[in-house]
Amino acid sequence: MSKIGPMSGFPEFLPADRIVEQHFLDVIRETFELHGFASIETRAVEPVERLSNQGEDADKEIYGVRRLAAGADDEGPGIGLHFDLTVPFARYVLEHAGKLSFPFRRYQIQKVWRGERPQEGRYREFTQADIDVVDSGTLPNHYEVELPLVIADALRKLPVPEFVIKVNNRKIPEGFYRGLGLDDVATVLRIVDKIDKIGPEKVVERLIESGATDKQAKLAVQLADISSTDTSFVEKVRALGVEHETLDEGLEQLSEVMAAAEEHAPGLLMADLRIARGLDYYTGAVYEIYLVGQESFGSVGGGGRYDALASDGKTTYPGVGISIGISRLVHRLVSQGLLKSTRSTPTAVLVALNNEAERSDALRTAAALRARGIPVEVAPAAAKFGKQIKFADRRGIPFVWFTTENGPEVKDIRSGEQVPADPATWSPPAHDVRPSIETPQENS
Amino acid sequence: MSKIGPMSGFPEFLPADRIVEQHFLDVIRETFELHGFASIETRAVEPVERLSNQGEDADKEIYGVRRLAAGADDEGPGIGLHFDLTVPFARYVLEHAGKLSFPFRRYQIQKVWRGERPQEGRYREFTQADIDVVDSGTLPNHYEVELPLVIADALRKLPVPEFVIKVNNRKIPEGFYRGLGLDDVATVLRIVDKIDKIGPEKVVERLIESGATDKQAKLAVQLADISSTDTSFVEKVRALGVEHETLDEGLEQLSEVMAAAEEHAPGLLMADLRIARGLDYYTGAVYEIYLVGQESFGSVGGGGRYDALASDGKTTYPGVGISIGISRLVHRLVSQGLLKSTRSTPTAVLVALNNEAERSDALRTAAALRARGIPVEVAPAAAKFGKQIKFADRRGIPFVWFTTENGPEVKDIRSGEQVPADPATWSPPAHDVRPSIETPQENS
Repeated sequence: MSKIGPMSGFPEFLPADRIVEQHFLDVIRETFELHGFASIETRAVEPVERLSNQGEDADKEIYGVRRLAAGADDEGPGIGLHFDLTVPFARYVLEHAGKLSFPFRRYQIQKVWRGERPQEGRYREFTQADIDVVDSGTLPNHYEVELPLVIADALRKLPVPEFVIKVNNRKIPEGFYRGLGLDDVATVLRIVDKIDKIGPEKVVERLIESGATDKQAKLAVQLADISSTDTSFVEKVRALGVEHETLDEGLEQLSEVMAAAEEHAPGLLMADLRIARGLDYYTGAVYEIYLVGQESFGSVGGGGRYDALASDGKTTYPGVGISIGISRLVHRLVSQGLLKSTRSTPTAVLVALNNEAERSDALRTAAALRARGIPVEVAPAAAKFGKQIKFADRRGIPFVWFTTENGPEVKDIRSGEQVPADPATWSPPAHDVRPSIETPQENS
Repeated sequence: MSKIGPMSGFPEFLPADRIVEQHFLDVIRETFELHGFASIETRAVEPVERLSNQGEDADKEIYGVRRLAAGADDEGPGIGLHFDLTVPFARYVLEHAGKLSFPFRRYQIQKVWRGERPQEGRYREFTQADIDVVDSGTLPNHYEVELPLVIADALRKLPVPEFVIKVNNRKIPEGFYRGLGLDDVATVLRIVDKIDKIGPEKVVERLIESGATDKQAKLAVQLADISSTDTSFVEKVRALGVEHETLDEGLEQLSEVMAAAEEHAPGLLMADLRIARGLDYYTGAVYEIYLVGQESFGSVGGGGRYDALASDGKTTYPGVGISIGISRLVHRLVSQGLLKSTRSTPTAVLVALNNEAERSDALRTAAALRARGIPVEVAPAAAKFGKQIKFADRRGIPFVWFTTENGPEVKDIRSGEQVPADPATWSPPAHDVRPSIETPQENS
């Protein structure tokens, strides 16, 4: 039998930390639903051909899947685990288009798998929470404004450190480079995207090596340096003196996003013209979510607009989406000790037993409490007072229910207070019914 | 690009049916938590060696997983997708034993994958909901009583047809066969397990072929024919005149289960001595859940007690668990037209627009309603009255919010009633806030 142990890149939570993750998932789902997004789940596998067509070097990341008992020629085209939720969603839209209503607002919270070499904060299996709006034919720009507001609404309800959603529009660098006379946009983008790693001087050097003039290279770097928490980025771009129709479009669309953000979610969005979001399918707005002061950890989510991902040849379904990397975010906060659950179980009340003959009564007591929404478990065995308290204490269960000579009583094991209690009417204080999430710095 | 289309055995729900599935998952999770079970999730993959050690011919069902970009010798021992949640849970317990408190009550709701040939009602990917209790060293028998009560509690809260949990105890056939002098228990079990498929006469024939006497064979078949909704199965077994210590133990343990069921969940459990639950790791109670009158569809869940699944050589962690096959159950009910959602989106209110300039106000109206827990979306575009109503109607959204000359008004598009409304105070009726699940036969 193989050795028991963790597998690199496949993290698992202990029960208390899983409660933190569940809290995140619940708040995110609730927020998405309040904004009218419908849940879907897609199968874990797609044809490898479909997966590897998307993104640069995507096939490096794919986990192939095959039946172990199958003959080599049994399976037809290979299948693989999805590495994001956008590619499967695009396929779902094409497959079910006739049965969906457009614009279609959906959220999707599922695991994804990437066969990368695991390193700090990178996982081979992780949970993402995505929202997307897709339309049939054309997609109004106001969705590029709305989606980051939904994500900001979710993150604001969560016990996370200060965050910022950095936003750019692909049309800005594209139009700017073209206006400069740099027509190989993809190459310029790829070089400028390295600015945080290699610094602006090296970027200028490499741009010149790729054929840009000194002036073109410096302007491209100056563009990447522009950011603002309002619409003032527009003037800064204009001051560089480059003109192009696509640039105008991009500036206008990003201004709309920033103006709406200033009104509906002040301080949460930042226009940052350095944001590139890889080289994949995005065509308009692009977003990256960062924890403020922890930018070096990398983004905890992101997304953008894609106009051509889903097309059946006749109809195109343009969309815009943002994804939150739940596993990455929660593991980060939990491992830094920034978040913990008040207990390792949902149980709020342990019903103690003086002897095994009481178990049937204890089940009735438990059922009466549960009927009013209180999580309860009955003690595994009859035991002395101190052992029952210890059992509860080890799990963080706040209340123990005893049968005494005077009838049923319930003890708050934190305060030691013990009071008579009727299973038909007694309730713990509202904040003790479910485990809550503590942010230790609040307590210090 | 590969053709767009479904993959056999990998079902996907449309949004309205996904709402039905979410309702099932929510009720099941809520019930499990009320009973003090803590959530865990395990990684999707395990070493193939660990998977294929469990159960008969398990490796036939395993989907192997490997990085497409990896060299053949890069991965070390192969990994595969888990085919149930019990084998990974046993590994999780061994891996994290030092950080868990025993007895450990956990629930786990995840996808599992089986590389079988898909056929009616069989899936290659499906969602299971499992509860298990494991202890360190020994596991008290009362958990064999408690677990089916928890499952019954969950199923009773769901809009499912009448169900029955059939229960047996592995010690009953084992002790009975040994008492009869049939010591190759596994062979006898395997033949008797075919009784529903080939009939009792054929089972007797095959038992005789395998070395049993006519009398032994007939008694083995008579045992499998015993069932009762109370503890009367004990007398029926005693009447067959076979004696064995293990039989006594099994009868006593199953009696405890049935006596508790009679008290706490009358009519939901049936002692059925034919239940075998395959030939895998179970050692005590075994359970199968059936929809009454749809037994031919097969079970919609099951489980049992396993004493030796998780052991690190020093300590053994015996457990008992039951699983509900969510996908199987929900797909069955949805495809039979027995359940449907009142709408295909969480949205309860569509905020209509007379013109695009109203969007910012509309976002404020939406935010005010959401702050009180009402799911809202703003119309994708300004449009005439009729088009807005049609948009809502197609999705089943019950209310449309209009800005009129007299101020904001809200229309119930089902009744046509339209009333003035203040976004700070107006709410839909409680049953319209979220989609609800209809059972069409109730409406007829």
